[in-house]
Amino acid sequence: MSIHFKCDRDTLLKGLSTVEKAVELRNIKPILEGVYIQAKRDGIVLKATNLSLSIETMVEGDVVSEGEIVVSARVFYEILSKYTAGMIDFDMEEENRLKISNNHSKTQLSVMDAAEFPGFPLVPEKGAIVLPQNVFKQMLATTIFSAAISDARPILKGVLMEVESNSLHIVALDGYRLAFRKMALANGVPDIKAIIPSSAFREVIKILEDSDDDLAIYLADNIACIKTNRTQIFMRLLEGEFIKYKNILPSEYKSKIKLNRNEISDSVERASILARNEKDKLVKFSIVDDFLTITSASELGEAFEQVDIFLEGKHIDIAFNAKYLSDVFKVIDDDNIILEFNTNVSPCVIRSGENDDFLYLVLPVQMR
Amino acid sequence: MSIHFKCDRDTLLKGLSTVEKAVELRNIKPILEGVYIQAKRDGIVLKATNLSLSIETMVEGDVVSEGEIVVSARVFYEILSKYTAGMIDFDMEEENRLKISNNHSKTQLSVMDAAEFPGFPLVPEKGAIVLPQNVFKQMLATTIFSAAISDARPILKGVLMEVESNSLHIVALDGYRLAFRKMALANGVPDIKAIIPSSAFREVIKILEDSDDDLAIYLADNIACIKTNRTQIFMRLLEGEFIKYKNILPSEYKSKIKLNRNEISDSVERASILARNEKDKLVKFSIVDDFLTITSASELGEAFEQVDIFLEGKHIDIAFNAKYLSDVFKVIDDDNIILEFNTNVSPCVIRSGENDDFLYLVLPVQMR
Repeated sequence: MSIHFKCDRDTLLKGLSTVEKAVELRNIKPILEGVYIQAKRDGIVLKATNLSLSIETMVEGDVVSEGEIVVSARVFYEILSKYTAGMIDFDMEEENRLKISNNHSKTQLSVMDAAEFPGFPLVPEKGAIVLPQNVFKQMLATTIFSAAISDARPILKGVLMEVESNSLHIVALDGYRLAFRKMALANGVPDIKAIIPSSAFREVIKILEDSDDDLAIYLADNIACIKTNRTQIFMRLLEGEFIKYKNILPSEYKSKIKLNRNEISDSVERASILARNEKDKLVKFSIVDDFLTITSASELGEAFEQVDIFLEGKHIDIAFNAKYLSDVFKVIDDDNIILEFNTNVSPCVIRSGENDDFLYLVLPVQMR
Repeated sequence: MSIHFKCDRDTLLKGLSTVEKAVELRNIKPILEGVYIQAKRDGIVLKATNLSLSIETMVEGDVVSEGEIVVSARVFYEILSKYTAGMIDFDMEEENRLKISNNHSKTQLSVMDAAEFPGFPLVPEKGAIVLPQNVFKQMLATTIFSAAISDARPILKGVLMEVESNSLHIVALDGYRLAFRKMALANGVPDIKAIIPSSAFREVIKILEDSDDDLAIYLADNIACIKTNRTQIFMRLLEGEFIKYKNILPSEYKSKIKLNRNEISDSVERASILARNEKDKLVKFSIVDDFLTITSASELGEAFEQVDIFLEGKHIDIAFNAKYLSDVFKVIDDDNIILEFNTNVSPCVIRSGENDDFLYLVLPVQMR
């Protein structure tokens, strides 16, 4: 076993910070806390996996002698980040010891057996969903917060990705709220469904860049793969049937209001400070003519907020958990939003006033 | 009981963020979680106290009706920070309810009885130690990290402030390291000593600004007071005798090295990553001729670091807890530093290469 390569510190750190999102943090198996490093003629391959999420990327370097090793991801990252910037030499002279060095510093790091590192799937060769990286990142950021956190119904910790008639849908819901986002695909892709762990998508968001370069998504039987220029991300799918979400979406409304997103967002934030029950920050809405009045109360005091609205339909009094509203207001980036109501025990639909590609649904809290 | 005033949101938030450092966080007595607000002809006085640390400041506002109240510091701050910027009206119309309002928002906050709020000491009228705010802030920042954290010897959680022959000394030590800083005073002040809780000084650092406006410090029998333009900070002194620190300072050395601070600082940081015992990150120094070699080892690997030095005196091998060195290197801001040694079981003295106003002392770790 030998390996010898030279690599720029910042280049290597950037690659490491991409793959480290898949490093296993629970003390399960030492090899999964490692980063796999392969020096190949065409560059340095880095890999990490927690068996559910697996990430592979490639960085540039000068390869003197090809080889593969595994080192502790955390220790390797910490050491490199303390090295001075510039080229660093990596060389396995002694058995089980990687020598890291530059002019002034020399570090010898224990290595693990690369043969023990789990194999990675191959990227499927066809059926890619192709869309710009920044668009997909935005679709995830505005939906996955609605996925369940609790383990009560494991399938709700997943996010549905489906292609239906050349339209890509992303759906997340937790029993109290639902986020739906769609996008027309340019290329012809057959209809398909997959449920991806929201935990994996939370790491994917951190890796994707705000670039309009295309990425390709491949959905297979038990795995999804996202491929960018230098990086492949593999996510094991959740098994089971997703909630039939279309049955939940209301097809009509009795009241519809249009209002400024910042105004309602700030008002809900202020009102929620005085709704002191942390678990269920109750805020009451009263919609009459030109105003939405938001109130809350606790032993600390009372809040009254008034927001200008355009109302179409009937007056309504309805109450919400402030957190579920705030979460949505944070991710919509349009100035005007629309809220649609039926009764004060049926879901409220929240839409952008300018964009038809997404929809949120929030259940009200029953008032006593 | 009534009160009515108008105040700019950001002005009030700035004042609140000053006094909130003294708000009691342990659930001891509700009134101590409050901020005292007094509307007076000449402005709005804000006060908070945890009985050990007490802070009073004044902000500008339009007083319609004088009065005093106490409200929950945390809730009041949270609400104001969510209000839109600009003038806000504060009015106690109802008994026990402070109405906070602007054009769109209205909040009614429970108030506590101002008569229950602890009285504040008076600022002594003479004997002030006068020095620029930024200089005092810097003196604190470069010493108080050496005070003890543990309760084993309560007096070591204090910081000694003493005036001796018109020189102000600040000293903190925890049994493993000592930080000493001095400054010649321009005005004539009688010799005096006081031991101030390091916890209070940690809050003082956050309040002081990087301005060269003077502040005045008054040391009385059981209290110290720091007075800036708008703010007074009162700190209850610790009782007892401080360690006779002058007896600990070595009067000579057998080896003295001069070296670049950044180089030794970075090398110690890198070596400490592989010194995995969190409690006692052992790094070994070997000083021979023109080089300081720093090494460390653990099951993760080994580090070797070499730093250029100018040596005067004998070769020496000595070991340290890396944390005590890093802490010092972070606060010295000169390029060159000096380390003085006697034996590998006696304290090492660390000085600036350019400035005689401070001195650190670090105990070595005995090597087996």
